[in-house]
Amino acid sequence: MSTINRRGLLKAGAFASIAASTSGISLSALAQGETIKKPAEAPATPEPVTRILAHYLVNARYEDLPANVRKEGTRTLLNWVGVAVGGSHHETVERALSALKPFSGPAQASLLGRTERLDIMNTAFLNGVASHIFDFDDTHLKTIIHPAGPVVSAILALSEYHPVSGKDFLNALILGVETECRIGNSVYPNHYDVGWHITGTAGVFGAAAAAGKILGLSEQQMVWALGLAASQPVGLRESFGSMNKSFNPGRAASNGLFAALLAAQDYTSSDGMIEAKRGWANTISTKQDYREITEGLGQRYEAALNTYKPFACGIVIHPALDAAIQLRNEYKLSEDQIARIDLKVHPLVIELTGKKTPKIGLEGKFSIYHSVAVAIIEGAAGERQYSDRAVNDPKVIALRERVVATIDPAIKPEQVDMTITLKDGRTLHKYIEHAIGSLEVPMTDQQLEAKFTDLAKGILPDAQVRKLIDTCWSVEKLDSAAQIAKAAVV
Amino acid sequence: MSTINRRGLLKAGAFASIAASTSGISLSALAQGETIKKPAEAPATPEPVTRILAHYLVNARYEDLPANVRKEGTRTLLNWVGVAVGGSHHETVERALSALKPFSGPAQASLLGRTERLDIMNTAFLNGVASHIFDFDDTHLKTIIHPAGPVVSAILALSEYHPVSGKDFLNALILGVETECRIGNSVYPNHYDVGWHITGTAGVFGAAAAAGKILGLSEQQMVWALGLAASQPVGLRESFGSMNKSFNPGRAASNGLFAALLAAQDYTSSDGMIEAKRGWANTISTKQDYREITEGLGQRYEAALNTYKPFACGIVIHPALDAAIQLRNEYKLSEDQIARIDLKVHPLVIELTGKKTPKIGLEGKFSIYHSVAVAIIEGAAGERQYSDRAVNDPKVIALRERVVATIDPAIKPEQVDMTITLKDGRTLHKYIEHAIGSLEVPMTDQQLEAKFTDLAKGILPDAQVRKLIDTCWSVEKLDSAAQIAKAAVV
Repeated sequence: MSTINRRGLLKAGAFASIAASTSGISLSALAQGETIKKPAEAPATPEPVTRILAHYLVNARYEDLPANVRKEGTRTLLNWVGVAVGGSHHETVERALSALKPFSGPAQASLLGRTERLDIMNTAFLNGVASHIFDFDDTHLKTIIHPAGPVVSAILALSEYHPVSGKDFLNALILGVETECRIGNSVYPNHYDVGWHITGTAGVFGAAAAAGKILGLSEQQMVWALGLAASQPVGLRESFGSMNKSFNPGRAASNGLFAALLAAQDYTSSDGMIEAKRGWANTISTKQDYREITEGLGQRYEAALNTYKPFACGIVIHPALDAAIQLRNEYKLSEDQIARIDLKVHPLVIELTGKKTPKIGLEGKFSIYHSVAVAIIEGAAGERQYSDRAVNDPKVIALRERVVATIDPAIKPEQVDMTITLKDGRTLHKYIEHAIGSLEVPMTDQQLEAKFTDLAKGILPDAQVRKLIDTCWSVEKLDSAAQIAKAAVV
Repeated sequence: MSTINRRGLLKAGAFASIAASTSGISLSALAQGETIKKPAEAPATPEPVTRILAHYLVNARYEDLPANVRKEGTRTLLNWVGVAVGGSHHETVERALSALKPFSGPAQASLLGRTERLDIMNTAFLNGVASHIFDFDDTHLKTIIHPAGPVVSAILALSEYHPVSGKDFLNALILGVETECRIGNSVYPNHYDVGWHITGTAGVFGAAAAAGKILGLSEQQMVWALGLAASQPVGLRESFGSMNKSFNPGRAASNGLFAALLAAQDYTSSDGMIEAKRGWANTISTKQDYREITEGLGQRYEAALNTYKPFACGIVIHPALDAAIQLRNEYKLSEDQIARIDLKVHPLVIELTGKKTPKIGLEGKFSIYHSVAVAIIEGAAGERQYSDRAVNDPKVIALRERVVATIDPAIKPEQVDMTITLKDGRTLHKYIEHAIGSLEVPMTDQQLEAKFTDLAKGILPDAQVRKLIDTCWSVEKLDSAAQIAKAAVV
């Protein structure tokens, strides 16, 4: 059965179950075409999800954050600044900046890695775009949300306009990440499966929550900010492989900021935009689990579950890259020894990264074949391995044609099973349970710094890079969070 | 059976049918729980819907437009300018303007009915908000899209920055309306039923298409503009009754403009964002009928089917208002004669306008009970009848409590059956097949002018109002469409 069919059936099943649950009839009754005689009662009093979340956001204090959560928030910040600086001179940013500069407001905030200053809304958008271009940003693995893009882009720009201490900035960052990941959890995977780019759709809530926290919104204003955010989801998976993909976290950032700024002036929305019958979750997903949003607020932190990529591509390729680089290094492999490379993978790997013949660097990120080949040849999978040069390298092309990826129902998304058959008949095998950069095998602080330095090289002077890294690590001690942006410009 | 159940079943049915059509199995097979043995083939070559639409948009000329379409486009413009001026000083605009002014770019474009000038993106948003505040704008009845808000807000602001003749402006306006209504048709009613505010979700395509036409995008750039528009749907029905409702057409306007401006700088998207497997229509709706988008382009015009409201509230109340005012005038009724008013209505009337006890003017628009009562007492249903004063008038409250609305499966949305029982025992009856303002009983040009004059009264001097009306009527003769905006400011 093809993926399309499988999905069609899955969706029909999920939908029938929703229909049944709202109408009080059983799925089997539906299947048998039974006439419905009696509607069920509505649940007694549905939980006011939006208000519960807003109440938490407005009252949550920096002092309440556990140390490990503060640490992970700081790592999230550091990693994001690195990828935003790294992407800052890409053609994608140049084109967007050319388009928007004539309409920008006052020079309120800084484009990282550059000299230009624009109004905070355009700055949030452009830094958000820059930070996602290399697909090298952070990942909340439960939802595949890239949490920092929408949130940090919005509040770092805001911090240059609306003064905020480093502690309050970090608190807002963590609350924003918490908001988008919890809302993402409530609708994942159905919402993602159908086609939404969840970083943009859930991300706008994160940006609104974080910006609203810094603006000091009242509970009612925060409810409205979340409502205006719910009205502005961004991004479809169809855009992956084009500049439209990095557009999504950027636009989520500016949309969330827009929502918070309007709410701060008492621009109203409905009180139940997340959970109402015609609200966000029911409209945008066939699954709604509101406990993911409301349970354990201030006790368990999704923000502590953030991860960072050692490789400049989608997370689903990372196990294969880890396996390829490990085998390459263990056996000192060169491509001319290799007859074929067999991979057993989760279906998502083929669905998201099944491009057989990428023509430009960006397309290489959506090719498991290119990724494995270039990693074997060059021993890395950074931005350089996803350049136009790399995807058109005849050696890489020759090797990628010998990569065979097969869907295996037993393989989870975080796993891979790789067998390399050498021309001399030997086979080398590597099974990856968790790739480097996962929750189980996280990147160390030193690895994060090395990644940052590599990204910022050639954009900022070496001494400034070191100082910028130190500024990020010391966010909790900063009088003004604006120092971060100021330390990141040319 | 309650509305919820009926909808649940309708949705389940629609979904099963989609699932069946994508998986090649019959609905009855699904209903019988039959095991699926063989997947069907995918259709040979799916139509490139986004590209076909872009090709049409880029090549369509003013000279190709039939006279009736040009006339309706001009009426669309006139009606929109009237409602935008009328709403321009509402608290909703004041709050949004306070929020956004600090971030606005150069004074490029005019807020209608006011003195302020902002950058074109913020202007498009604010004029779009203003034009929908009274729920008094135009309606494409097949989809309940309000076409002008997203489209005209975007291109009128753009016309002050990027010179465009009146003819080309009207052509762009019509193409924008055509785009959003055709895309709306392709997913209506499922898309609306589930909770999307279709004016904001389809509207963003209209704004992008119209702005892209004025910017002279190439076919490929127009494909990208539509793709970036697809990434930014706006609005949920849950927000109805709050300021968030008028937010939606405003944000659709600025989002569409944003998409077109980026595409003009070759900011890329996917080539099939409307029709791809993970594209807009499949992600956002359980129904996709692409023939609505691609068939008869340049031959049949949805833009010719636009209608204008004689009453300042949602279209579903109009038949009841028409009946109430007709009976009131025929029998010179006063409220103290009336024992009760019985209405037989379509289910949508209760669903959208079932508020029994509105407390503020805006809520009155979502109350069939208030609407009928105030129309009987005051003989009209303009903005004044939806003020805080009107919904709290003891006479109106007393009468609205005697209004009984009953769902009748035989009644279509455009119909109503009203029976007024008088205290003296007489009953008066009125059946409305099509209300005033419908396609069948359209408002005349004179009625549109009277509506415009009433809306602009007190905002612009009478002589200027007359001149502004004449400027709109003569759009095809204007050297620069910017004259319209210039004629509409204080």
